[in-house]
Amino acid sequence: MDAINNTTELTETERIDRLRLIRSDNVGPRTFRSLIAHCSTARAALERLPELARRGGGGGRFRIFGEQEARAELEASAKLGISLLAPEESGYPPRLATTEDAPPLLALRGGRETLMRPMIAIVGSRNASAAGLKFAAQLARELSDAGFVIISGLARGVDQSAHRASLSGGTVAVLAGGHDRIYPPEHEHLLATIIEENGAAISEMPLGHEPRARDFPRRNRLISGAALGVVIVEAALRSGSLITARMAVEQGREVFAVPGSPLDPRAAGTNDLIKQGATLVTVASDVIHALEPIMARPLSLPLDEPEGEPLQADPDASDRSRIIALLGPSPVSIDDLIRLADTSPAVVRTVLLELELAGKLERHGGGLVSLV
Amino acid sequence: MDAINNTTELTETERIDRLRLIRSDNVGPRTFRSLIAHCSTARAALERLPELARRGGGGGRFRIFGEQEARAELEASAKLGISLLAPEESGYPPRLATTEDAPPLLALRGGRETLMRPMIAIVGSRNASAAGLKFAAQLARELSDAGFVIISGLARGVDQSAHRASLSGGTVAVLAGGHDRIYPPEHEHLLATIIEENGAAISEMPLGHEPRARDFPRRNRLISGAALGVVIVEAALRSGSLITARMAVEQGREVFAVPGSPLDPRAAGTNDLIKQGATLVTVASDVIHALEPIMARPLSLPLDEPEGEPLQADPDASDRSRIIALLGPSPVSIDDLIRLADTSPAVVRTVLLELELAGKLERHGGGLVSLV
Repeated sequence: MDAINNTTELTETERIDRLRLIRSDNVGPRTFRSLIAHCSTARAALERLPELARRGGGGGRFRIFGEQEARAELEASAKLGISLLAPEESGYPPRLATTEDAPPLLALRGGRETLMRPMIAIVGSRNASAAGLKFAAQLARELSDAGFVIISGLARGVDQSAHRASLSGGTVAVLAGGHDRIYPPEHEHLLATIIEENGAAISEMPLGHEPRARDFPRRNRLISGAALGVVIVEAALRSGSLITARMAVEQGREVFAVPGSPLDPRAAGTNDLIKQGATLVTVASDVIHALEPIMARPLSLPLDEPEGEPLQADPDASDRSRIIALLGPSPVSIDDLIRLADTSPAVVRTVLLELELAGKLERHGGGLVSLV
Repeated sequence: MDAINNTTELTETERIDRLRLIRSDNVGPRTFRSLIAHCSTARAALERLPELARRGGGGGRFRIFGEQEARAELEASAKLGISLLAPEESGYPPRLATTEDAPPLLALRGGRETLMRPMIAIVGSRNASAAGLKFAAQLARELSDAGFVIISGLARGVDQSAHRASLSGGTVAVLAGGHDRIYPPEHEHLLATIIEENGAAISEMPLGHEPRARDFPRRNRLISGAALGVVIVEAALRSGSLITARMAVEQGREVFAVPGSPLDPRAAGTNDLIKQGATLVTVASDVIHALEPIMARPLSLPLDEPEGEPLQADPDASDRSRIIALLGPSPVSIDDLIRLADTSPAVVRTVLLELELAGKLERHGGGLVSLV
């Protein structure tokens, strides 16, 4: 078991409120956290949503996820053996709970105790070489035997190979779509076997959500976030696995890469990662030794935004236009905005929240924002 | 041209004296340097050799290389277009001249100006894979085009591939035997082409010397010593190329390694080198960028042992037995010996020299010695 204490349990009402909030228009994990920080509860945030969105210039089309819809999603999920858990609940992967943009509710199916154990991600090319597939399986088996849960993306190639080799030790599949929209479809049987063997599947998407191209990078942050470290087995330049590696770096996770011949384009990405400082892996102990000191450190949840500030700050039209003028397509830090906007932090944060809910602002990691 | 000034020219007498000294029993490059440091000239050292060896317990079989033999070697060499040069002479590779155990006379054939240019070593498996051979050629060509001389060991596999690909830019073969004992014999034609193309061959061995197994590691230190850095293309664990890499580290040369699949035993050595800190190479610019700052630094010859100490120190039997008692098969530092022997540094150095000439002492790098 990992070191964090996830022992709270939400009330049904709180779970429904949170589900309604995260499924409403323009609310992602970061906006969700801002709203909770400002409004204290999901219920209060739901009440303020329409007004905030309207002030941000969102027009009349802002949609709040209804209570009946939320109940229906929870019921349909339960029928499929899926729970929707909050970061502070037991069963939510502890390391994922510590990430800045952890899903406020994670849909999970399978062995909860497996999700609480230390995980290592193994990812790589969908069209890996025979050697890459063999090595992925070998490494997954050895790390699994050493007590780690293998987490991956259920994709063809390296992912599949890693899941299969670690079935008996527990393996976790992270889905880009809803739990009833498995991609690729031919891996439904593999997923069933993962669940039978006390492994698990997790997704932040609602049931019925068909995975689109942009959902995969978003999903990749869950793979790296839940893990102590990410091993990239084979990866061409500009491949999805490198996105996972970049996210792992941003999340402070260890990055491991498996080397290959400079003449093999499937090794170009991994060799490049090693040049940039990733740990070269040829045997499981390379990974285990690097992770030992990290496992010894206690986990802590991320710092929330400053609390106790009143959202009641009431920005006027000149505040809004001044703050919008300071924003652009390049990410800027909220701290800089507060310094330059010549008004109170509460006013700046309120305007940002309004813009976000109106679909006009994007939050990045590290307190950065940009106009969409 | 590299930055050191090798502009002295030996007189014929001095060249003959030095050749006699280095070809005498139990005199290697390090002993040669000790003798010169203590006796000032090769001539004076030759005169003192028999007595020093006898006092070290060398028995009556100590053989000094005769003057006629030395003249004969120089003449036979000249007929084959071979010069025997000292580190301070033009044509002696400048970086090799800065090493602790640079050959006091280097037998060289071919383009002297090529030997004065900045070199990069490319070495690797004799039974390299097709990919390894192709990559070695590609890298050699690109580094050659960038103005570097490629230096290697004329072996089968990677060495041959590197030499061939850099013929037109100048390439240097370092021989383990004498210039008339090319190994492997089927590379005589390649060597002839190297020389025709204004490349060169170097050896520290006399004509007629058939290379033995132990001569290859010894030769490898010349490859790494002459180069700015050494690129290892493919290497199994415990292979000769890893000896070259180790020597490169001891000589302060950059070590570069080409990665490969963990499932390929020919990449086990190179992947291991990268784990230990060697620079991963997939393109020529990886090598060039790492060497740029090193090329900018001036070269300097190694510090000689403290001069001006009289070798006239006359150790007695009790000095000898006390110093021998402090020695064993594990290398110890000469500084520690001097501290522990409770006598003058000159006495310690004299006893060490006697033991060396008697074939009982081995000098290692960094001022370390051990009993044979």
